[in-house]
Amino acid sequence: MTIPLSSPLENKRIRAFAHANIALAKYWGKLDGEQNLPAVPSVSVTLEALLTTTELLFDPSLRSDQLRLDGSEVQGASLARVVRLLDEARARSGSKCFARVTSANSFPTGSGLASSASGFAALAMAALGACGRPVDRAEASDMARRASASAARSVFGGFARLDAGKPGQRVLAARPLAAADHWDLRVVIAINTRLPKGVGSTEGMNHTARTSAYYDGWVQLASGVADSAQDAIARKDLQALGEAAEHSALSMHACAMAARPPLVYLQPATLACVHEVRRLREQGVGAWCTIDAGPHVKVITSPMDAKRVVERLGSLPGVLQVIESRVGPDASVEVTEA
Amino acid sequence: MTIPLSSPLENKRIRAFAHANIALAKYWGKLDGEQNLPAVPSVSVTLEALLTTTELLFDPSLRSDQLRLDGSEVQGASLARVVRLLDEARARSGSKCFARVTSANSFPTGSGLASSASGFAALAMAALGACGRPVDRAEASDMARRASASAARSVFGGFARLDAGKPGQRVLAARPLAAADHWDLRVVIAINTRLPKGVGSTEGMNHTARTSAYYDGWVQLASGVADSAQDAIARKDLQALGEAAEHSALSMHACAMAARPPLVYLQPATLACVHEVRRLREQGVGAWCTIDAGPHVKVITSPMDAKRVVERLGSLPGVLQVIESRVGPDASVEVTEA
Repeated sequence: MTIPLSSPLENKRIRAFAHANIALAKYWGKLDGEQNLPAVPSVSVTLEALLTTTELLFDPSLRSDQLRLDGSEVQGASLARVVRLLDEARARSGSKCFARVTSANSFPTGSGLASSASGFAALAMAALGACGRPVDRAEASDMARRASASAARSVFGGFARLDAGKPGQRVLAARPLAAADHWDLRVVIAINTRLPKGVGSTEGMNHTARTSAYYDGWVQLASGVADSAQDAIARKDLQALGEAAEHSALSMHACAMAARPPLVYLQPATLACVHEVRRLREQGVGAWCTIDAGPHVKVITSPMDAKRVVERLGSLPGVLQVIESRVGPDASVEVTEA
Repeated sequence: MTIPLSSPLENKRIRAFAHANIALAKYWGKLDGEQNLPAVPSVSVTLEALLTTTELLFDPSLRSDQLRLDGSEVQGASLARVVRLLDEARARSGSKCFARVTSANSFPTGSGLASSASGFAALAMAALGACGRPVDRAEASDMARRASASAARSVFGGFARLDAGKPGQRVLAARPLAAADHWDLRVVIAINTRLPKGVGSTEGMNHTARTSAYYDGWVQLASGVADSAQDAIARKDLQALGEAAEHSALSMHACAMAARPPLVYLQPATLACVHEVRRLREQGVGAWCTIDAGPHVKVITSPMDAKRVVERLGSLPGVLQVIESRVGPDASVEVTEA
């Protein structure tokens, strides 16, 4: 393999932007193997309010890749995942140049607010942008998916779907279901901790797959729930989407709770939100919960009801902050010659 | 059918005593049909601290059966279940005499503290005591089981098991596994509400069986968990019993959470207890949770660690009262001529 004297990666300043997404039909479980393929399909909405901004600079003076996240240098497993993605960009361009990655989230990192989704979507967009061609979104989604499967969906704004993988498959990208302007859905996010979660998603889903008697049932129900969510998005049917989303989220957490030892991501404030949203529904408010692998609760609702949901969740003990989000746009990248 | 002029039921004042039990391997799910047969085996410990006292008086001047529970007259479905049990006693004795039942619990009623278990165990003991023969415990357990399956276990002190029913079966009694003096286990009960639960156990388990994708998985895992719990009781192995009990309880609640619509008995205070008990274990305290179809948490622990568990649970927000219980005795009955 020949190394170009001047790699196309260098001498460019790249900025990429990607929004977190929440799965309305949850991703939980991987196929066996090295390809990071999901065992179930997932359907998501991209969140305007949760933004990751990532700067990427390939710098010949560096002796290793460097990652700065929310102002702190990061080493270890998180850096290793970034290095693997950068290796793909180097393989595409034939460069061996190391890079500095500087990433910032507009929201708490690593606690179930999908920072790895927006983070790796932004990084994939940036890495492909550095390769000097117009960025192909499907390629970016596939690249992001290998780092973090939920990141595949954050490449797309609006509503997106990532299908389940098939054994032996090597390429799998998410695909857009509808753009952000298709439906003015609102997502109210109750932030219930500032702490990183105890058990990461990958470890949690692998433990669940190995030890939960409900895992096969989960995989079987997930396809139907994803199709229901997709259909509800096409029809803009909030109740149908809400019921599918709540069922998906609670079934995912239930599957994890039945693992040995049990995996309980839900915290007291999480359940306070779940029960409050049910009470709101009993009062005629169209609002349904979803919960990722952390204590936060995201409530899907209408523009009309969002204010009431914000007020009610904000009044609950243990809820630290409440954010209302619109549906977010596509990830994007800016390339300027340094 | 001839009616004796003086029925053996009359002119007796009966007092029966039964203690609530908690299932360490949970009962959740019924076989189809009218016989109230459980779909899974369950294993329990009887709780000295939770006592139901029931007085029964067959009175020729009454024109219907009457039930007074914790000082209030009760009508409707609760009375109907009592009447059905009294009908069995009348069928056995050939009497048509109505009865007054006066029952009192030493703990909150109808909120997942197993008041129906101790209540129907006491009533079955009383009803058989009224028939004028020495009470056969297996007969009382079978009679109690038809009213409330968990009540079958409260006829016995110590540790008891109720097997799963078989289609077409008519008689099924619990059986004792070990007497109260076999093992000085302690159960710390965190009372997290004074309100009756929203969805009763029978309705909840039938809804779960009909709509939860995890119900088959639950039925399959329940037998192994019951055998593990039984074995751990025989060996007095607290860790093995604790892990089986926590797994059983969380799997039961998980199965209900995956129902459509979801059934979430857990409340914020419930999860506060679950996480606190996990933290106690990380600090070397031998303590494990179990949770029935309500928000309360029962922690099984040793005499040595019980005080620390009581203190820690009592300090949590939402925990209204904490009770420490020893293993309780057999149900009993006193018969005096009126």
